[in-house]
Amino acid sequence: MYSFKNDYSEGTHERILNALIKSNLEQTEGYGEDIYTKKAVELIKERIGHEDADIHLFVGGTQTNLTAISAFLRPHEAAIAANTGHILVHETGAIEATGHKVISIKVSDGKLRPKDIKPVLEAHTDEHMVKPKMVYISNPTEIGSIYSKNELELLSEFCRENKLILYVDGARLGSALCSEENDLELSDLGRLVDAFYIGGTKNGALMGEALVICNDFLKEDFRFHIKQKGALFAKGRLLGIQFLELFKDDLYFDLARHANAMAKLLKEEIIAAGYKFLIDSPSNQIFPILPNKLIEKLQDKYSFAIWEKFDQDSSVIRLVTSWATKEEKVLEFIEDLKKFYK
Amino acid sequence: MYSFKNDYSEGTHERILNALIKSNLEQTEGYGEDIYTKKAVELIKERIGHEDADIHLFVGGTQTNLTAISAFLRPHEAAIAANTGHILVHETGAIEATGHKVISIKVSDGKLRPKDIKPVLEAHTDEHMVKPKMVYISNPTEIGSIYSKNELELLSEFCRENKLILYVDGARLGSALCSEENDLELSDLGRLVDAFYIGGTKNGALMGEALVICNDFLKEDFRFHIKQKGALFAKGRLLGIQFLELFKDDLYFDLARHANAMAKLLKEEIIAAGYKFLIDSPSNQIFPILPNKLIEKLQDKYSFAIWEKFDQDSSVIRLVTSWATKEEKVLEFIEDLKKFYK
Amino acid sequence: MYSFKNDYSEGTHERILNALIKSNLEQTEGYGEDIYTKKAVELIKERIGHEDADIHLFVGGTQTNLTAISAFLRPHEAAIAANTGHILVHETGAIEATGHKVISIKVSDGKLRPKDIKPVLEAHTDEHMVKPKMVYISNPTEIGSIYSKNELELLSEFCRENKLILYVDGARLGSALCSEENDLELSDLGRLVDAFYIGGTKNGALMGEALVICNDFLKEDFRFHIKQKGALFAKGRLLGIQFLELFKDDLYFDLARHANAMAKLLKEEIIAAGYKFLIDSPSNQIFPILPNKLIEKLQDKYSFAIWEKFDQDSSVIRLVTSWATKEEKVLEFIEDLKKFYK
Amino acid sequence: MYSFKNDYSEGTHERILNALIKSNLEQTEGYGEDIYTKKAVELIKERIGHEDADIHLFVGGTQTNLTAISAFLRPHEAAIAANTGHILVHETGAIEATGHKVISIKVSDGKLRPKDIKPVLEAHTDEHMVKPKMVYISNPTEIGSIYSKNELELLSEFCRENKLILYVDGARLGSALCSEENDLELSDLGRLVDAFYIGGTKNGALMGEALVICNDFLKEDFRFHIKQKGALFAKGRLLGIQFLELFKDDLYFDLARHANAMAKLLKEEIIAAGYKFLIDSPSNQIFPILPNKLIEKLQDKYSFAIWEKFDQDSSVIRLVTSWATKEEKVLEFIEDLKKFYK
Repeated sequence: MYSFKNDYSEGTHERILNALIKSNLEQTEGYGEDIYTKKAVELIKERIGHEDADIHLFVGGTQTNLTAISAFLRPHEAAIAANTGHILVHETGAIEATGHKVISIKVSDGKLRPKDIKPVLEAHTDEHMVKPKMVYISNPTEIGSIYSKNELELLSEFCRENKLILYVDGARLGSALCSEENDLELSDLGRLVDAFYIGGTKNGALMGEALVICNDFLKEDFRFHIKQKGALFAKGRLLGIQFLELFKDDLYFDLARHANAMAKLLKEEIIAAGYKFLIDSPSNQIFPILPNKLIEKLQDKYSFAIWEKFDQDSSVIRLVTSWATKEEKVLEFIEDLKKFYK
Repeated sequence: MYSFKNDYSEGTHERILNALIKSNLEQTEGYGEDIYTKKAVELIKERIGHEDADIHLFVGGTQTNLTAISAFLRPHEAAIAANTGHILVHETGAIEATGHKVISIKVSDGKLRPKDIKPVLEAHTDEHMVKPKMVYISNPTEIGSIYSKNELELLSEFCRENKLILYVDGARLGSALCSEENDLELSDLGRLVDAFYIGGTKNGALMGEALVICNDFLKEDFRFHIKQKGALFAKGRLLGIQFLELFKDDLYFDLARHANAMAKLLKEEIIAAGYKFLIDSPSNQIFPILPNKLIEKLQDKYSFAIWEKFDQDSSVIRLVTSWATKEEKVLEFIEDLKKFYK
Repeated sequence: MYSFKNDYSEGTHERILNALIKSNLEQTEGYGEDIYTKKAVELIKERIGHEDADIHLFVGGTQTNLTAISAFLRPHEAAIAANTGHILVHETGAIEATGHKVISIKVSDGKLRPKDIKPVLEAHTDEHMVKPKMVYISNPTEIGSIYSKNELELLSEFCRENKLILYVDGARLGSALCSEENDLELSDLGRLVDAFYIGGTKNGALMGEALVICNDFLKEDFRFHIKQKGALFAKGRLLGIQFLELFKDDLYFDLARHANAMAKLLKEEIIAAGYKFLIDSPSNQIFPILPNKLIEKLQDKYSFAIWEKFDQDSSVIRLVTSWATKEEKVLEFIEDLKKFYK
Repeated sequence: MYSFKNDYSEGTHERILNALIKSNLEQTEGYGEDIYTKKAVELIKERIGHEDADIHLFVGGTQTNLTAISAFLRPHEAAIAANTGHILVHETGAIEATGHKVISIKVSDGKLRPKDIKPVLEAHTDEHMVKPKMVYISNPTEIGSIYSKNELELLSEFCRENKLILYVDGARLGSALCSEENDLELSDLGRLVDAFYIGGTKNGALMGEALVICNDFLKEDFRFHIKQKGALFAKGRLLGIQFLELFKDDLYFDLARHANAMAKLLKEEIIAAGYKFLIDSPSNQIFPILPNKLIEKLQDKYSFAIWEKFDQDSSVIRLVTSWATKEEKVLEFIEDLKKFYK
């Protein structure tokens, strides 16, 4: 059984593992005050081209989101998210548990644009309603689409005009930035958004997300919030070592490129086999629509998620590739798909 | 300027005022442990026909909702509400501020039915999502529609099958129960729902809502929650005195009947004048669609809410009648409406 | 049975009742946007001598405290209170329920001084601990003591130096300001503290507390917080009318003076009868230490709280006087106390 | 510079590291539903002798505490802790941030006994106060003392009689259970307490704590709470692999025994050198009282925490040993201490 279920099925890339092994018996300070974390932070700042950014390393994405959002908002302020937004549907109400409403906007491609947000602002007129204060987006989105530079610039401008905090969930940011359709760079994020995180867990690290706070007003006392949410990691150096390895050269991007290449290969061959997709995703998650009978056969050898029913006879499935996906397994999958088809 | 803006523009019915005056210098226990509150509670239990119900008096509706919902749910559990639900749109995220997500269901008439709720239950499959645990409805709804006995029975049955708490926001319950289309009685609520509140503020009291907890499992330690949310009223007897007066005979229903009669009069005459309505509301809120030019003229003499834009030339307005609405003013309004029309 | 149990046993002073009767059938805007509230707010600003203050009217004290404190603090910030502080012991964890720790400081007389707070600041050194950010005091304290102008000035100076918000719970502020030992005025509060509230419930109003926010940084969006906590009162004019009546001349202070005079009379005669007190309280709560046998006899005719056990044979009781306490009843109580004593 | 600052300065024991390396490229399910976690859970249940226990693996201690406590308590319920309790002082108000008060009890040795808790229960009499519902203890305590079997039995009995949840923070549980003075076994915990956690982070794991829920009433829907608090670890197998390695033989206890032996060696030699201790700790944290001059010299070569000032000339320091502490470094430290002394 080979899994295309997600991008965190394996452990970590061997370079990261070796870095952990090598440093294993060194003594360091705890709670992210070690030398590795300091170096990793400096390195990431350089890559973003934002010397004044504050960077904090977390173990996981939900943890990062809930800590950041609850630290950034006052009690009456709400976040706005696309209806597919991770904080809306797949974090068990983690944001609401910190006291904040998440306002859902129905869109077709997972992306928010000023025209989607404007009516929400207009509808929230007074103190009988929450105050929309943050725009939460994911890049790539939860359905694999990505933001172009122009889209992000327009959104950024709109947020600044309307005093909205723009926050980017980058759980799979590597895949977005390495997509063939992408024209965004890390430094654009540093310039255009108030805060974002660079996902490690889904791009080859054992675990880890690097939260980047660009807006000075959001920085104060942030470590208190990390500790209060149970997110201050005792052996913080484990995160520092991993991000240092990922960013000391292009490893982070190489891993994402591999994941994307595998997804592209899958996509092209599935198209060639005559199937359509729910959405044209340029990142490492793809959503082909397949006959239920074919899906059943594939499930004997491969694991993947059934995304949703499409019609009586077919369903949308989600295939996720990763830094660890083996090309031979992709080819085998394609072969099986074509074979079963006949 | 005469107001049809809401049903809490005046003070209180004179019988209630007199009861307050008469008891003013008596000494009583505080925090709802006085003799008036005890009597009022007994009386309401009788009227509901539910000896074992627990009844707690509150000052206002949002306070009642947030105290009850946060006491009834565990942290990971969510409430389900129609998209027009008061807790969803007009309580500034009060429920989320206690840590709970409110799941919105889009419906056209403000009412929830099993077929609306079922897909929500089916979509919430595991621990990555909140657990839907409460169905919140308002009767009448925020747009004036009411539940029939059959509708409430079906909803109640569905909730019990699915282990969902059924909670009714009765801010204008009097108007629903006294509507000509209504076939529900107070005792049906006691039988069919887990908890509900009987609104006083919008039906002639100075202030006050009576929360009725029917389900034994929801009763424990409830007064702790009232105090914790700042809702344990020092001079609790003020609420007891008012509900005693409202329920010692049919005053509560008489006041609601008057409000409904005034709304009906308005409705019939507006129909006669050739206008349509957003929804056919049988309670004390009506939503006529009027030409913008007519609205502007009416606004010189009357205050009311503009509900929403209808088309280029016309808008939906909301007219609310109350226990205090004067028939002469209704007639005057109708006359003006017809006069301006020509 | 006559009650010295608290200062909210009766309804309201007749002047306030008359003002409510007189305005009863007028139509006004809801939620504190009526003309009475506006006038009351202007009047109070004048009395405080603080044109820029923001004033919000609430129904009760716990509601005021939890709304203000949760609006003023960020999630990681804590309030500091004396061990007798109302928010610490008698509000069912209302402040913690909004997410904030309340740090207790043990003092003997209910009052906080810089020397008490300093060690707390020194002990909270880093992000593994909450950040002390607010000093909560009550004037008079929960055991009847009051702050002198000098004490408040020193505390204010200390708070400003240490960037601490100084908040005063004035549930019985009238009694403090009208005490014979008092040298503080309303305007001193406006000058020295960041926010405070003027209690109405315990000084002759049916209900109501006026929160005064002096510090500009604490004002933003405050009405959102009121609504979110269920504290935005539909018929807000009821609060406006009462505070207008209390402050349009010296009624607020006259009522407090009467309460204090009655307490003084009790105190002097109890001393004359040879008894001691737990603390020398100059306000409307006094704490005599009486033989248990005497207490039992007094309980046949009077209700009051047993505060705590003193020794094997005697206990501390709490006697509270109010705007409504009748001098004849005080004299009767004293007579009984002396009679029973023999 | 050698560190005695804490027990999480190094990475992980080599056997654990090897297990991680060996499994690195295997594909597994995420979120703790992998085969390693399942095996580890079964193994721990066996060791505890409690087949019906629920076991959940977490990344860190504060995360474990806040998830468990907020899942176990209703909003008005509070936890009771010794004044040194970790949740009281060193988790940045994490418990209060979930809405619950933590009641502090001042004790001298870090341990709670029925006689300490009884007055707290007696003082919390009604709904104006929180309801004490959980007793939180740490074993060993934050100052190194441990509970005897008899002490835990008495506490357990008291909690059951008073319907209090007994919860044990076992961040350093290995050290307690392997102390020479200890007479408790893992199975006693399973029998006597409602929930406890077995700390891995401070006993040789890279990270990880195993929460054991013994009381059936506390088990329902627990994974929802883990996810909501951001504590559901994507690559959960990393925790499973580590606990499997720790418990498949006696590694967990061997590591703790080493840490204790190193602490004992330090303690005996420091006593021999003529110094006293703040408390007689039988676990891996010791608190010698040393002259400030000696401390300064030691700080040139060793890092450790200054716990508190003792008198004008001396201070209490905290020395922590671990699974990784080298005996040669301990001997060197002792030699230096003796040398500097002269």
